[in-house]
Amino acid sequence: MPEIMANTNHGKYPILIRTGALAQLGDVAGKTVRSRKAFVVTDSIVEGLYLEQAKKSLEGSGFEVASYVVESGEASKCEKNLFAIYGAMHDFGMTRSDLVIALGGGVVGDLTGFAAATYMRGCPLIQVPTTLLAQVDSSIGGKTGIDMPFGKNLVGAFYQPKAVVIDPGLLKSLSRTRMAEGMAEVIKYGCIRDAMLFEAIEKGQADMEWMLQRCVKIKTTVVQNDEFDTGERMLLNFGHTWGHAIEKVSGYSRYTHGEAVAIGMIKACEIGEKLGQTPKGVKERILNVLEKWHLPTSTDLPVEDLYQTMLSDKKKLNGKVYFVVIKEIGDSKTQPLSEQELKDLL
Amino acid sequence: MPEIMANTNHGKYPILIRTGALAQLGDVAGKTVRSRKAFVVTDSIVEGLYLEQAKKSLEGSGFEVASYVVESGEASKCEKNLFAIYGAMHDFGMTRSDLVIALGGGVVGDLTGFAAATYMRGCPLIQVPTTLLAQVDSSIGGKTGIDMPFGKNLVGAFYQPKAVVIDPGLLKSLSRTRMAEGMAEVIKYGCIRDAMLFEAIEKGQADMEWMLQRCVKIKTTVVQNDEFDTGERMLLNFGHTWGHAIEKVSGYSRYTHGEAVAIGMIKACEIGEKLGQTPKGVKERILNVLEKWHLPTSTDLPVEDLYQTMLSDKKKLNGKVYFVVIKEIGDSKTQPLSEQELKDLL
Repeated sequence: MPEIMANTNHGKYPILIRTGALAQLGDVAGKTVRSRKAFVVTDSIVEGLYLEQAKKSLEGSGFEVASYVVESGEASKCEKNLFAIYGAMHDFGMTRSDLVIALGGGVVGDLTGFAAATYMRGCPLIQVPTTLLAQVDSSIGGKTGIDMPFGKNLVGAFYQPKAVVIDPGLLKSLSRTRMAEGMAEVIKYGCIRDAMLFEAIEKGQADMEWMLQRCVKIKTTVVQNDEFDTGERMLLNFGHTWGHAIEKVSGYSRYTHGEAVAIGMIKACEIGEKLGQTPKGVKERILNVLEKWHLPTSTDLPVEDLYQTMLSDKKKLNGKVYFVVIKEIGDSKTQPLSEQELKDLL
Repeated sequence: MPEIMANTNHGKYPILIRTGALAQLGDVAGKTVRSRKAFVVTDSIVEGLYLEQAKKSLEGSGFEVASYVVESGEASKCEKNLFAIYGAMHDFGMTRSDLVIALGGGVVGDLTGFAAATYMRGCPLIQVPTTLLAQVDSSIGGKTGIDMPFGKNLVGAFYQPKAVVIDPGLLKSLSRTRMAEGMAEVIKYGCIRDAMLFEAIEKGQADMEWMLQRCVKIKTTVVQNDEFDTGERMLLNFGHTWGHAIEKVSGYSRYTHGEAVAIGMIKACEIGEKLGQTPKGVKERILNVLEKWHLPTSTDLPVEDLYQTMLSDKKKLNGKVYFVVIKEIGDSKTQPLSEQELKDLL
C-alpha cells in the first residue's frame, strides 16, 4: 500500500495515496481511533458526489456517522459555519475521543480542521481531500483556520491530522479550472525541490498517483523540518507572496488561488533575475508549463497596490518580506528583503 | 529570583513568582520576544487596579502598548469577545511575532490565551494572573478556551505561554470570597501531592509566596508529564468531577468554582471511603481546613441531577468517569468507574 509517514511534533501519521482509497476510509478510521463515532463535514458539491460512499465505508467499520454540509466556496470558511459545526458536534454528543473527518477541498479542510483542533481543545481528525489542490497542499501540514472580514486565514491553529486519505480517483469529477489550480502547486513543488517532477510535467509524462506521491513527500519533509512555519517551510511560499497579494487586490474573485500563484511564480522569477539569483531560461521553462495548463502568467493589477498588500501580509516578519527565489529548476532559497529593497526591485 | 521553569512539548518557559513582579513585566516581555508591540487584555475591575502599572512597565522596556477591556465575569468568556479581540488585534497591526498579555483572572487568561493561540495561528503569550485561583491554577498548563451556550470550556486549545508573571502583591485587592475560591485549589494541591503544604495550611503557617511556589511546582510537574490531559493530569481534577457538576446543575451562579470544588473534594472523600481507598479521618481533616476558609462542604442539589451531569462531562472517556481518590493526605490516584459502579456508589 503506497503510504507515506509524516512526522510531527505530536507523533506520526500515515498518508495513504491510492486510487479507490475512499472505500478504505472506514478501515483507516478504525485503526486511528478507539471511539466509534464519526462526524463528517463536507460541502454542497462533494455531498452529492462522495458523502454516501464515505458514510458507507465508515458504517461498514462500525462507526455511527453524522454529517454537516456547508455551501461550496471560500465564503464558507467563516465564523458562522465554525460555530454551527461546534453546535452540530455537541448535538451529536461528540467527546474529545470521537473522530472528525474533513471530506472536501481546502475550504472544508481548513474549516473542519480548525473545528477539530478546538472542539474540547482537540479531537482526532482525518483529512480526505477531494481536490488536487487539497491533496497536494492544504490537507498536509496542519494549517487550519477561517477567514476574517479583514483577511484570509487570520484565525486558526497548527493542528496535525491523525491520517490523510488521498484518492486520485476523486479528481475525475474536478473541472478543468480546479485541476489547473492544483497543477500550479504541483509545478511549484517541481520548481523548488524536484527537477525530475518538473521534467515529467514538461514532457506530459506524469502519472497522477506518482505525481501526488512526489508532492506529498516534499510537503511532509519540509513541514517536518519546520512545523510551525518559521524557516524552511517558507520555501513552499514560492509564488505565494505575490499570489496572496494578487488574490487580495483583485478581491478574491478574478483569479483562483492557483492562478494567482502561477502569476506569482513568474513575478518571483523576475525578481530572482534582478537579484542575480535566478538564471536566464528558468522563467521561460516555468512559463511554458503554466501555459500548457492555461494558467495566467501576468496581470494588469497596479504594482503599487500589490506592493502595499505584500507589506501588510503575515509573511512579513520583523519588518522583512521573505521572498522565495529559484536558483535552478528543483532548487530554491529564501531571500529576505527590506521594504526599501522590495520597492527598488519593483 | 524565585523562578520555576516549566517544560512543555514546545520548549520551556519561566514562571516568576515574586511580590512586586508586575513592575518587572516589561523586563520579562523584553527577554521573551524580539518584537516591541504588546497587546494587553484585561477586565473592567483589573483595569482600574493594575493596567496602568503594567503599561508603564512595558513602555519602559520600549513596547508600544494597546489594551482591550472586557467586562469582569464568566459571561465574558464568549464568542463575541473573542472575535472583538481578534478585530482589535488586527486594528493594532499585530503580526504573529507580536506579544499578547493576559492581565487578569481565569476568565481573562482563558479568553486571551485562546485568542493568542489562534490569531494568525498563534502569537507569543505572557500570562499575568491577578487572582489566587489563576496564579495557582489556570495561568499554568496551557488550557485556554471559551464557553459555549451548551457548556463551559467546550471550545479551546492547548497553548503554552512564553512566560508567567505571578505577583502575590496583587492578591491584596481580592475579596474574601475570591481568596477562598483560590484556597480551595491550594488545599487540593496539598491533598493530592503535598502533605507538608496541607499541614502548613492546617496550622495557618503558610506564607503566600512559599505556598504559590509549592502549588505552581506541583502543577508544572503534573502538566509536564501529561501536557494533553490523558493521564496523570487527571489528578488535578480531585473534587472537580463533582465540582463541575455542582456548578452546572446550580447554573454557575450559586457557587464559585472554588466553592463547588470544596464540596466536590468532600464528596470524593466519601466515594473514596466507600471504595475502601480513603482512610477514615482524611475527610475530617480536609473538612476542617475548608471550613476555616468558610468554604461550603455539602450541597442540597439533587444527586440524580449531579450524576446525569457527570456522565455528560468531558472527563468521561471511553464510557468511564475518572474519579480522583485520596489514599492519604498528599497522595492520590485516578479511579475509573463505569456508569453502573458510579450509580451504585451514589
